[in-house]
Amino acid sequence: MRSGTAFTQGLRQAVDNGPVWTVEAVRQVRYHVVSSDGLFIPGNTALLTGCPDVPLGPGDRRLVVIDENVDALYGASVRAYFAHHAVDAEVVALRADETVKQWDAVSRVVDAMNGFGIDRRREPVIAIGGGVLTDIVGFAASLYRRGTPYIRIPTTLIGLVDAGVGVKTGVNYELGKNRLGTYAPATATFLDRSFLRSLDLRHISNGLAEILKMALIRSEDLFTLLESRGAAVRADRFQGTTRELASAADTIIAESIHLMLEELQPNLWESSLERCVDYGHTFSPTIEMHALPELLHGEAVVIDMALTTALATLRGDVSQAQADRVYAVIRALGLPLWNDVLDDPLLLENALRETVRHRDGQQRLPLPVGIGRHHFVNDVTPTELRDAARLLRTQAQESPFAASVGALVSAPVGA
Amino acid sequence: MRSGTAFTQGLRQAVDNGPVWTVEAVRQVRYHVVSSDGLFIPGNTALLTGCPDVPLGPGDRRLVVIDENVDALYGASVRAYFAHHAVDAEVVALRADETVKQWDAVSRVVDAMNGFGIDRRREPVIAIGGGVLTDIVGFAASLYRRGTPYIRIPTTLIGLVDAGVGVKTGVNYELGKNRLGTYAPATATFLDRSFLRSLDLRHISNGLAEILKMALIRSEDLFTLLESRGAAVRADRFQGTTRELASAADTIIAESIHLMLEELQPNLWESSLERCVDYGHTFSPTIEMHALPELLHGEAVVIDMALTTALATLRGDVSQAQADRVYAVIRALGLPLWNDVLDDPLLLENALRETVRHRDGQQRLPLPVGIGRHHFVNDVTPTELRDAARLLRTQAQESPFAASVGALVSAPVGA
Repeated sequence: MRSGTAFTQGLRQAVDNGPVWTVEAVRQVRYHVVSSDGLFIPGNTALLTGCPDVPLGPGDRRLVVIDENVDALYGASVRAYFAHHAVDAEVVALRADETVKQWDAVSRVVDAMNGFGIDRRREPVIAIGGGVLTDIVGFAASLYRRGTPYIRIPTTLIGLVDAGVGVKTGVNYELGKNRLGTYAPATATFLDRSFLRSLDLRHISNGLAEILKMALIRSEDLFTLLESRGAAVRADRFQGTTRELASAADTIIAESIHLMLEELQPNLWESSLERCVDYGHTFSPTIEMHALPELLHGEAVVIDMALTTALATLRGDVSQAQADRVYAVIRALGLPLWNDVLDDPLLLENALRETVRHRDGQQRLPLPVGIGRHHFVNDVTPTELRDAARLLRTQAQESPFAASVGALVSAPVGA
Repeated sequence: MRSGTAFTQGLRQAVDNGPVWTVEAVRQVRYHVVSSDGLFIPGNTALLTGCPDVPLGPGDRRLVVIDENVDALYGASVRAYFAHHAVDAEVVALRADETVKQWDAVSRVVDAMNGFGIDRRREPVIAIGGGVLTDIVGFAASLYRRGTPYIRIPTTLIGLVDAGVGVKTGVNYELGKNRLGTYAPATATFLDRSFLRSLDLRHISNGLAEILKMALIRSEDLFTLLESRGAAVRADRFQGTTRELASAADTIIAESIHLMLEELQPNLWESSLERCVDYGHTFSPTIEMHALPELLHGEAVVIDMALTTALATLRGDVSQAQADRVYAVIRALGLPLWNDVLDDPLLLENALRETVRHRDGQQRLPLPVGIGRHHFVNDVTPTELRDAARLLRTQAQESPFAASVGALVSAPVGA
């Protein structure tokens, strides 16, 4: 832990034309990410003691908001677990997908909190579901009485490695992806790989997109591991049915999360808008919202990465051989290389303009340099985008795995 | 400025059953409260340079959200000021009162921000209006892209001394007063007393209630000043038409704000729920929402203070002579002592229960000790509340100023 950086706090008064006050204060934030398989096996005490900041014991009450699909599969185990430990849990099922990630869903969680009569500080809401659900519940909790603690239990791979470990909450507003939200870390996130056994392969791929992102910008080792074991680990749904698969699954998840947290921790509130974890997130918000509900989040992200890999190839920062490896891994992970929205040059220009607005007047575009490294650029032009899209289309059509570009779009492997 | 308190930041990884990460980070917050009369007189440069963090100059764009009543009175001056300084200002008028302080109003501000295409960090929204308006705009800004800066220009007394100087934003949700909100200070608040010249006396009184609160818990000197000059300063609407009135008005506002900021600064995110500035805010949220739209916020607060003064009298912490002075000042400031909802013992009990929920399981009730001091109690009983209400009713009926209790309720002086 670093510490000792100079912070200032206090109240200062000066007089100019009248009194002028300056208020300075410092907020310490701390949160935990705890791995534990089989969270709802009655003998597992991780949820009771795993987060020392909010212990849970007999007689305590908890509001549990669970994705309705997860409820159908695991709701009985969840209820039985809390009953076994004499925790008075009220379980509320919520529909949560990108199309309903709007204020109305937040309002439903607020209604549940009101109905439960939740205590302000000592009864964290427990959110069980994918990234959309944990984003919605985290947003509601962060607003309720200006901040009620919450706990995340991601049940999807993208929730495990991405949405579940950061501090961002939020919902879409009209076509604005996560336009409204807060920075509000869950007190703790509990990572339980065993949920992935029931996840369809398309959603496994969806999470692998964010893992691939971390590899492409930060770690050639992780990329190489995805290249050699990614497809097998995907087919195994990270369940570790052989010792080798277990080791690969553990390493892929832990490395991806560790790299992500290394990037997030020094910049938790995005005081710097040059964020390499925004790789794949320059064009994808517009692509995703435009194509909704056709593309999952990770699919939109990987299309953005394919496009910017092509762009980096044109710039000479990524060799054609490296790009071919990247495209091959994307395919092997069951992810799309292309979507026809890339044929619309205006859409890409608009996406870039919107990103500039989001990044305070500059592009601050993370671009890959080789595999595992990156730099930031501010000089991407509409013409360059069109050229990159044209190059990518060729690459995508040349794929031995894809009968046609259309097939890559409409039927991600394993959906 | 104090500094040097130990904060920790960094990423720590341990291994239990699987990897466990702890993320620690520290956020530095700073905001300014700047007094300047006649903000929109063309020669006044406070808005351009008064906040060094966000200078404003020719060619800059600003979204201005203004209360529709304020727009009718001052909109032309506001537009002329920005035009004079070559600032491209888009002025959006919004209805803002307690009955519409709901999510829909936030949504309208978000629409305006979308329409304006606001930049994420460099184009603070300027909010001009009372506390309700600045709470709504501050809430919207704090959520937009997870935090867009904003600037407050309060136009009411309660906005100047209370809503405008703290860090809380929010809206009501159903009957829950400010049930949803954020801690998000305005980059700067500009205090301009001259707006008060057009404020009706009932709203002057509304602000005086929060000033009286600070006096009762923190400063006998401020109380004495309110006792001797409050009524005259009120009638003068804080405009300082004589030198003596100007001095009293300046002192009352500056002292009240300074005491408030002294209390807020060390506890900006309410990590301690024992807040003396919550005096008058134990029963008033329920009273206010129950009586909506009959009572203004300050009126509900002052009724709560009258009730708890009676309660402190019964406990022997406030003498009858001191209570009589308090009641006399309340009347002299044009504020009500009583509302018939106090006759409903269940309402008071519910309000206390709701407060306990809000204060994490304990009453943490600030009660006056004499005049200008306070302590916290956790043992108020329903019977005691009924006795205090009965005592207050007698006091209110004995008032030489009030023909009847009803008159105090339905017609605040100067409305």
